[in-house]
Amino acid sequence: MITAVERVRAAYARIAQVDRPEVWIGLRPQADAESDAAAVDAKVAAGDRLPLAGTVLAVKGNIDVAGLPTTAGCPAYAYEPDTDAPAVARLRDAGAVVLGTTNLDQFATGLVGTRSPYGAVRNALSPEHVSGGSSSGSAVAVALGVADIALGTDTAGSGRVPAAFNGIVGLKPTFGLIPTEGVVPACASLDCVTVFARTLPEAERALSLMAAPSGRALSAPAPRSPGPWRIAVPEPGQLGRLDTGWAEAFEAAAQQLADAGAELLPVDLAPFTEAAAMLYEGAFVAERYTAVGAFIDAHTGSPGLDPTVAGIISRAKAIPAHQLYADQQKLVSLRTRALAALGEADALLLPTAPGHPTIAEVAADPLGANARLGRFTNSTNLFDLAAVAVPAGDVNGLPFGVMLIGPAFTDERLVRIAGLLTDPPVRLAVIGAHLSGQPLNGQLLAVGGRLLRTTTTAQAYRLYALDTLPQKPGLVRVGKDGGEDGGGGTVEAEVWQLPAEGLGKFLAALPRPMALGSVELADGSFVTGFLCEPEAVDRAREITSYGGWRAYLAALPRL
Amino acid sequence: MITAVERVRAAYARIAQVDRPEVWIGLRPQADAESDAAAVDAKVAAGDRLPLAGTVLAVKGNIDVAGLPTTAGCPAYAYEPDTDAPAVARLRDAGAVVLGTTNLDQFATGLVGTRSPYGAVRNALSPEHVSGGSSSGSAVAVALGVADIALGTDTAGSGRVPAAFNGIVGLKPTFGLIPTEGVVPACASLDCVTVFARTLPEAERALSLMAAPSGRALSAPAPRSPGPWRIAVPEPGQLGRLDTGWAEAFEAAAQQLADAGAELLPVDLAPFTEAAAMLYEGAFVAERYTAVGAFIDAHTGSPGLDPTVAGIISRAKAIPAHQLYADQQKLVSLRTRALAALGEADALLLPTAPGHPTIAEVAADPLGANARLGRFTNSTNLFDLAAVAVPAGDVNGLPFGVMLIGPAFTDERLVRIAGLLTDPPVRLAVIGAHLSGQPLNGQLLAVGGRLLRTTTTAQAYRLYALDTLPQKPGLVRVGKDGGEDGGGGTVEAEVWQLPAEGLGKFLAALPRPMALGSVELADGSFVTGFLCEPEAVDRAREITSYGGWRAYLAALPRL
Repeated sequence: MITAVERVRAAYARIAQVDRPEVWIGLRPQADAESDAAAVDAKVAAGDRLPLAGTVLAVKGNIDVAGLPTTAGCPAYAYEPDTDAPAVARLRDAGAVVLGTTNLDQFATGLVGTRSPYGAVRNALSPEHVSGGSSSGSAVAVALGVADIALGTDTAGSGRVPAAFNGIVGLKPTFGLIPTEGVVPACASLDCVTVFARTLPEAERALSLMAAPSGRALSAPAPRSPGPWRIAVPEPGQLGRLDTGWAEAFEAAAQQLADAGAELLPVDLAPFTEAAAMLYEGAFVAERYTAVGAFIDAHTGSPGLDPTVAGIISRAKAIPAHQLYADQQKLVSLRTRALAALGEADALLLPTAPGHPTIAEVAADPLGANARLGRFTNSTNLFDLAAVAVPAGDVNGLPFGVMLIGPAFTDERLVRIAGLLTDPPVRLAVIGAHLSGQPLNGQLLAVGGRLLRTTTTAQAYRLYALDTLPQKPGLVRVGKDGGEDGGGGTVEAEVWQLPAEGLGKFLAALPRPMALGSVELADGSFVTGFLCEPEAVDRAREITSYGGWRAYLAALPRL
Repeated sequence: MITAVERVRAAYARIAQVDRPEVWIGLRPQADAESDAAAVDAKVAAGDRLPLAGTVLAVKGNIDVAGLPTTAGCPAYAYEPDTDAPAVARLRDAGAVVLGTTNLDQFATGLVGTRSPYGAVRNALSPEHVSGGSSSGSAVAVALGVADIALGTDTAGSGRVPAAFNGIVGLKPTFGLIPTEGVVPACASLDCVTVFARTLPEAERALSLMAAPSGRALSAPAPRSPGPWRIAVPEPGQLGRLDTGWAEAFEAAAQQLADAGAELLPVDLAPFTEAAAMLYEGAFVAERYTAVGAFIDAHTGSPGLDPTVAGIISRAKAIPAHQLYADQQKLVSLRTRALAALGEADALLLPTAPGHPTIAEVAADPLGANARLGRFTNSTNLFDLAAVAVPAGDVNGLPFGVMLIGPAFTDERLVRIAGLLTDPPVRLAVIGAHLSGQPLNGQLLAVGGRLLRTTTTAQAYRLYALDTLPQKPGLVRVGKDGGEDGGGGTVEAEVWQLPAEGLGKFLAALPRPMALGSVELADGSFVTGFLCEPEAVDRAREITSYGGWRAYLAALPRL
């Protein structure tokens, strides 16, 4: 494994490379993060088992990190906590190094990612599109390969919509499974701390480390009789208007579950949709006034307040309590109908969002565009359900995502089902322009790659400087006993983890004379890695003796 | 057992005798109840097993009984339901016969029993004192021996305070254990249907018949490690001001539990008391506006509205939802503290109320007197706890009552613990002036008696008409083989069930020459019954040949 210090350095290099300053509210000085990382490395060297050693973490700006201001996206609201929120502390205890706090829709009020005086957070893959929110910066930090895992929060979809828009995984755990101490409340009775990661196993590991004996008691879900997963899938007509191509992408995801052996069941989505609508039309928004209403009243007109957010929360002051009771009673009845509609299903499959607007579209209709985004996520928290959001292909060059939603405390089961939509991650050895810091490294990060370790090939390879642009090396196996002119050497290699889908994309775009094949590493293991066609090296210079591409480049004369 | 028809006739006779018209809002015509009773008797004769055959039931006026108006204590609100509430239907299915619907604090808003246009309900034992409410008529109907069991409701103590004030048992089950369909909501998230009876076994049997597969799922309480009951008992200083003599009575109840082997544990009552205060000072009252606020607004100033109740509910309209959320959050934290304070205790022992006001005292301060009454009961429903209210002696000639409060779904355990405070009921055979319809029958009813069956003594007794006022018979055993002048006969007898405490009181007040001893019945069993001192019959007329006291009286010439 790479060291924590190496990982932190790579993260800061990537931060500089991606040039997305709006992702961060409280980015730590690199030296501080490196100091934390050195302490992690020292513990590991001393024999401590730290499951997250070598992992870097971004934390949504409404969650306390000791020493960084907690802003909730509002400069005037900021306070500097003495201690980490328990969720952060548990990940740090496991070896994760915090890079900083991320931007968000102010007071976690929004699903767009544009409602912040720290700037609208642009989508990781298409800067003119929204990132989704409210956990905008955290999702983009993970999607860009800056952070390995990031914490968000989810009251009505804030931990899932940005996962879908940026092509990553988002876990919305059962309410109470992760403690919310040290989190600025949005709606305290609904708020959950969530996890973003590029792969399901990484997200699940972080969740299991944060799951709380001090929170809501862990309850096992009802035992399940054996048999195929039963997945409730609504009729297309109940999904309402979706962006072009999204209905087909949703159908393909359902078909993928069926192909993997799941039984698809029809389900009436009406109670879910009706409950979702209550979030904007009903009394529940008053809980946001309970949380920060007095602050907003005292800062009316202040430039640090997002006007859309301030308007939503201010208007909630006048909602009467008797209306809230009526809504709560209506919700109980809708929840009963929803659970009855799910029946024996293990999970409900839904698109994570109905569409993906541009930043300009949201600016033109801040409330309407936002409300549309919550159509499928809003009811989850109101019904006390758990959800897993995963990527499910691309539509028109942008990620498409789906959710699996199930009863409280079925989090683990939902992850297993979602795994049917996401192949397990694969490993890739790189030896040239894709190494950390090299010009094509961003291609790995863009498809969800994560550096696992730096090593060398087995002593059986020769390295050549090819005549390509950008300049690339070519790796050729000559065997351990040497080739015609005297045997091979070892070559520096990095082992990366990629989503299988990411590797597929990567390979499809690979230009001649590069090839992917099986590369033997120093420890005798084989891993998919870069090779090149033999004819390309016919007239190329052999540079094996440098020990690697970076060493060769470093020895070139500076022009 | 007596027949259902006999029981109904006795109930209507008792109704006439006690002259408490304010107990009822919808008393059924006797013929209707007798018709129901005849149907029950026919079913029993046909072999049906009806556990409540021969039992008469009173139903609080906010619970639907098919064919009677549901008023909730407000004539203008009345509607006539087509079907029984499930709670009523289940008792009727078990053989209970409904006598009618009872008076209540309007819209179940009050703990006093005086807030009703149908009249203030006077206490069963002391007419100048309040009955307690809101289930006033139901409690008094049971306490006076009119009904065997009665249904109430309890949102903040309405099923317990009137039990305490009238010396009977009141069960406040776990929320959701008895369905609340067909009940006019007070605070729908807190309302419970409750049971009144003169003895714990009768109340528990009715509860078990009503407990609902269709309601909240039945959950067993956490298994309990063996050992004595652990009863949390607050320090006297935390109980606040109590009526004179009540602190000593409470201490005696705690001592009685300790004497029965329970371990008494100290407990901090502060979170319970703070939560109780929130009911009057906080936002929870808004749920009453949700239930009936629109009706009250539309009937402002109508003479059928109780002004105190209408004022409370009207004022709740303006409470903001953000305040309700804040209160709900505060309540969650108080509940956590309360459960921590209870710790490993099986139950919390509390006085049911802090004192017992007169009707005049309540009229002088309708809000203050009422608020005081809820000091110990209000927090139970807010904390989702179960409670059992039982009599625990008298103070100054009025009943004193205590509660045992425990976690949700420990209802059965609480009844068992409460049983340590209430000896099992005993049986008494009566043969003269205490027979149903005779002048002293009310003495049995006043101490919680209930007629079980009509039979005769074994053929071993002689009956004499004594020279007493009122005129009484004397029963003397002569043996089955006959005495000096030729043997004994059989004598009509009624077997009554009384609380042990009631029998003790009865015996303590018994005038010479009457005695209580062991009487042999026709079936060979022995039961405590009326005898008389032999010297009293020396010059009395023997009337054994009449077969019983009622037959003798019927044969006397009318003067």
